Amino acid sequence: MAVYTEISDEALRAFLADYDLGELLAFRGIAEGVENSNYALKTSEGGDFVLTLYEKRVDPAELPWFLGLMRHLASQGLSCPLPVAGRDGIALRELAGRPAAICTFLPGVWPRRVRQEHCAPLGAALAMLHAAGEGFRAERPNGLGPRAWAPLLERCREGGDAVQPGLVAELEGHLSGILREWPRGLPRGHIHADLFPDNVFFLEQERGTPRVSGLIDFYFACTDHLAYDIAICLNAWCFEPDLAFNITKARALLGAYQALRPLSGAELEALPVLCRGAAIRFLLTRLYDWTHTPPGALVTRKDPLEYLRRLRFHAAAKDVGAYGL
Amino acid sequence: MAVYTEISDEALRAFLADYDLGELLAFRGIAEGVENSNYALKTSEGGDFVLTLYEKRVDPAELPWFLGLMRHLASQGLSCPLPVAGRDGIALRELAGRPAAICTFLPGVWPRRVRQEHCAPLGAALAMLHAAGEGFRAERPNGLGPRAWAPLLERCREGGDAVQPGLVAELEGHLSGILREWPRGLPRGHIHADLFPDNVFFLEQERGTPRVSGLIDFYFACTDHLAYDIAICLNAWCFEPDLAFNITKARALLGAYQALRPLSGAELEALPVLCRGAAIRFLLTRLYDWTHTPPGALVTRKDPLEYLRRLRFHAAAKDVGAYGL
Repeated sequence: MAVYTEISDEALRAFLADYDLGELLAFRGIAEGVENSNYALKTSEGGDFVLTLYEKRVDPAELPWFLGLMRHLASQGLSCPLPVAGRDGIALRELAGRPAAICTFLPGVWPRRVRQEHCAPLGAALAMLHAAGEGFRAERPNGLGPRAWAPLLERCREGGDAVQPGLVAELEGHLSGILREWPRGLPRGHIHADLFPDNVFFLEQERGTPRVSGLIDFYFACTDHLAYDIAICLNAWCFEPDLAFNITKARALLGAYQALRPLSGAELEALPVLCRGAAIRFLLTRLYDWTHTPPGALVTRKDPLEYLRRLRFHAAAKDVGAYGL
Repeated sequence: MAVYTEISDEALRAFLADYDLGELLAFRGIAEGVENSNYALKTSEGGDFVLTLYEKRVDPAELPWFLGLMRHLASQGLSCPLPVAGRDGIALRELAGRPAAICTFLPGVWPRRVRQEHCAPLGAALAMLHAAGEGFRAERPNGLGPRAWAPLLERCREGGDAVQPGLVAELEGHLSGILREWPRGLPRGHIHADLFPDNVFFLEQERGTPRVSGLIDFYFACTDHLAYDIAICLNAWCFEPDLAFNITKARALLGAYQALRPLSGAELEALPVLCRGAAIRFLLTRLYDWTHTPPGALVTRKDPLEYLRRLRFHAAAKDVGAYGL
């Protein structure tokens, strides 16, 4: 459920007066989104927008990079939120004491239940995202990449075994293997790094194939192995609710991706360890939140153990054949 | 923060297939609203709508009355959500195991901070609502009216004094006076009964007077003294954040209301006790929620003591002069 900053009418009106968007016609908090506060905005000139207030998890110094990347991706024809500048040409502004930006509204609905038909369009969209990112020169290191994992696990040491006895020791075992085998020299670029179903909008017709209408929420984007983004998607899209791996979905995702950007031999070989890394990354941040969130907080904690199941699956994968290739 | 029922894509698509609204273009949870789950919906035919799933606080048997009242009010020209019927002519349907209805979208923004300029348009809108309700024959008793207050207080007896020592005894004193003086024979009609600022949308221009663009959330509406609705609005709109009563706002509200429907002598005389009743009604439901909500629940509890301050103000009011008349 969304963090939710209250904005006074006066502050909102003063904020909008710096844009060429006309009069305010509607303004409603959006329930989706955990990291930031999002509001659906409708104005007399331009229609629908999304206003985002960046809450404390986002480092304000990094916002120009995120907004710059989104502007670059949109200029390359990718359907993603396009930051809207005020009259002075500046998109990153301040509202209610927080950094804030208005972006274009994207049509579409994120899939509450992933079907096989979503996975090929997703794979193609991911490859298009990776291609569209070329030419954006500034890099952003992955703050939740391999170097962050051991310190994260260390900070979960106290609470981790209460979640499941023996968990910390099992994770230490996995982690040392992952870090030892972590690949070097794979093709790099800008990755989304959080492309879960709620960040991918689809338009579907009654009996047609769903098509991707937009990608959102680039606030974990960074510069890293492109194939690591695929590994994140395999974790996020290809496990069923009972946590069984759906190899048909994986094959569809990988096939559509490779139709646009074929993976190198080194990338294919690295896929299992990249998947283990992606699983432990989400496991660790969830475990951290789980063990550090006071029970009464207005936040839905996500179960970290779902990712332990995924991690074990990847650890058992002999090679890329486990993913349908 | 909104209750939030997850709806699968298949269920949503099947639900929408029963309407003539075209393809689904957008679907997002709305953060506002406590009682029900609300979703902003955009479709290719007809544009914006609000989908409401009625959660457990609403009695399904009463929904036809609420939707019927909204349909009647809209037919009289009042700007309120108009239930949209499916192809079979039925507006009240089922989705995700809950009663559900799609209503038209209303433009406007509810005032996060009430200014004096909001109060005259509010008073006029309230009078128009009361006039528009005439001709809707079915009645709904006020389930949170005077008869409900003593039982509610009884159920708060255990936890009440923990909120503030002596609270239960003070409320018993107020309540017996209110019930003794409660008026009979005042003009009756359909009232909103929950017309707080978040249920009133305004459109404002840069330097113009705000105008009411719509009233929403009729799920407490009932048939009662019309002046009791005014008393609720005086409580909800005319106290400052420090809980000082703003007589200028009250005068604006009452003046604009009376320009459309002058209050009778009996109504004017009853206004202070109606205000005390409205204050104790919201105090008691908040106190009940406060003392019965587990600390870890995902619900924002509202401070009941804000209404004790209001109640004391009304109890000290000698006559309608205290409200600026």
